Amino acid sequence: MTRTVVESKTRTAVIGFDEPFCVIGERINPTGRKKLAAELEAGDFSTVERDALEQVACGATMLDVNAGVVYNSNPDPNQTEPPLMRRMIELVQGLVDVPLCIDSSVPGALEAGLEACEGRPLLNSVTGEEERLELVLPLVRKYNVPMVAISNDDTGISEDPEVRFAVAKKIVERAADYGIPAHDIVVDPLVMPIGAMASAGQQVFALVRKLREELGVNTTCGASNISFGLPNRHGINAAFLPMAIASGMTSAIMNPVRPVEMEAIRAANMLMNHDPNGSSWIGFARVMEQVEAGTPYAEAAKAGNEAGGGGRRRRRRA
Amino acid sequence: MTRTVVESKTRTAVIGFDEPFCVIGERINPTGRKKLAAELEAGDFSTVERDALEQVACGATMLDVNAGVVYNSNPDPNQTEPPLMRRMIELVQGLVDVPLCIDSSVPGALEAGLEACEGRPLLNSVTGEEERLELVLPLVRKYNVPMVAISNDDTGISEDPEVRFAVAKKIVERAADYGIPAHDIVVDPLVMPIGAMASAGQQVFALVRKLREELGVNTTCGASNISFGLPNRHGINAAFLPMAIASGMTSAIMNPVRPVEMEAIRAANMLMNHDPNGSSWIGFARVMEQVEAGTPYAEAAKAGNEAGGGGRRRRRRA
Repeated sequence: MTRTVVESKTRTAVIGFDEPFCVIGERINPTGRKKLAAELEAGDFSTVERDALEQVACGATMLDVNAGVVYNSNPDPNQTEPPLMRRMIELVQGLVDVPLCIDSSVPGALEAGLEACEGRPLLNSVTGEEERLELVLPLVRKYNVPMVAISNDDTGISEDPEVRFAVAKKIVERAADYGIPAHDIVVDPLVMPIGAMASAGQQVFALVRKLREELGVNTTCGASNISFGLPNRHGINAAFLPMAIASGMTSAIMNPVRPVEMEAIRAANMLMNHDPNGSSWIGFARVMEQVEAGTPYAEAAKAGNEAGGGGRRRRRRA
Repeated sequence: MTRTVVESKTRTAVIGFDEPFCVIGERINPTGRKKLAAELEAGDFSTVERDALEQVACGATMLDVNAGVVYNSNPDPNQTEPPLMRRMIELVQGLVDVPLCIDSSVPGALEAGLEACEGRPLLNSVTGEEERLELVLPLVRKYNVPMVAISNDDTGISEDPEVRFAVAKKIVERAADYGIPAHDIVVDPLVMPIGAMASAGQQVFALVRKLREELGVNTTCGASNISFGLPNRHGINAAFLPMAIASGMTSAIMNPVRPVEMEAIRAANMLMNHDPNGSSWIGFARVMEQVEAGTPYAEAAKAGNEAGGGGRRRRRRA
């Protein structure tokens, strides 16, 4: 059974076919968050700190760290992003002990993150684009880390799932040339908005199954993309995640500070027999009682963790 | 693609691989409802009337009708249940226009229901028990109706999913001897409580897929069984249903007067590409806005139907 091992300095997490679903917290990312971007340029990391603590309290298995700010004072991210990534990684790993996911489109920022990061982070990401493959695969080999592989290439993102599968297969084959095994590749088959493409859900479910069965790889996605542009997005996300899990998806990059989605994932873990004795579910049900009584989810989850309730599913290192 | 056609006097519904999930309303059933049982013995049908109207307003595709009362005045259901079934069927089909599901363990009540029912009801149920097969299959042939086939036999309910598959296969083969086609058989693979059997979810997902691929049959289940004995049951049910749908399940016998479960099913329909243009979802999102503002779900759903919102997914007869 495929297992992708990620580590912080003190903790190990496994993304795997026989593991609880891996929730990669997406909040530490200035893309589309103007206020956060301005804070980061001004050297204010208070939002990053809060997002790190809150996401872990809410049950994130890992945290994604993206430093993709375009500074007003210097528009070249090749200069500004690497030092910012280093600083953010140092800050976050000083606050929380979950493994990290280093997320950048700037190769220098990926390497700065790899240098700064303790343990075995997940590198996010390589694509099927030639230039990207040639830049990222040597880094993955050099640092012996697992990576996210996004199934677009130099021709863009194909609407045809067979083409997206072929791109993933090409990345797996190219990685093998560098000695990178399939179990260290987490493929993102790309989730289209269902409002724009009615077959988007079925495409993902079929692709995940095929990636798992034919390439033996773990999978991930930007889960909330599926509901883009539609009303009651949480309701769609909370059905999509269990369906993706039943199809074999093993992780998602998502917002864990959302009780509806996290409830769906906890239930799906139990239904996949990845919650022995239902102890995680039973602890989470106590948290949800507090949420229904009016306590904010992050606060209730934090109190639940402190009381030993099922808020944390990460395994302690042996 | 397998299609099981059911009809009321004026409406057709299809349980099928390419259809929205068929919600069979379970409420009209005195089993475990002492108050309803006493009312029925006293000739009071007010709860049946309310349950019929409310379930259809909330989006039931079909209604199950079960007359399984053991009268205090006469303990022989072979005498009391057939006339009660007839009366309940007549009452319900006079109130609502959805197709019905005639549900009894008493053969006389099944036949009384078949005589009274207009259109093409679903007969619930046959099992792999020899006596039951010999009693029910001739009725199914005589009335040319589809049936629910439950995968237990004279040895009871097996915990081994392979045995349950074999029982379903035997029923399909025996039905063929009577000229009953596989597309008129809706198999219930039997859902065990996940609290008692940790592999229960995975068993159902694998069985549904196999029943669909190898026998070509539609499937159903008593959906809420999965969460029996656990806290926050709606949360489990609302993940189980999308996972079962992603695995190929095409109907469930369930309580449609529950917004959480119905929201999960509506979202799953859209994610399976069974809600063209998302119009059903968008109408349902308006209903959920009312529910969040404090309106009871049944009332909000009824108002949504009257406003032409997505509360009704049944197709009109051509």
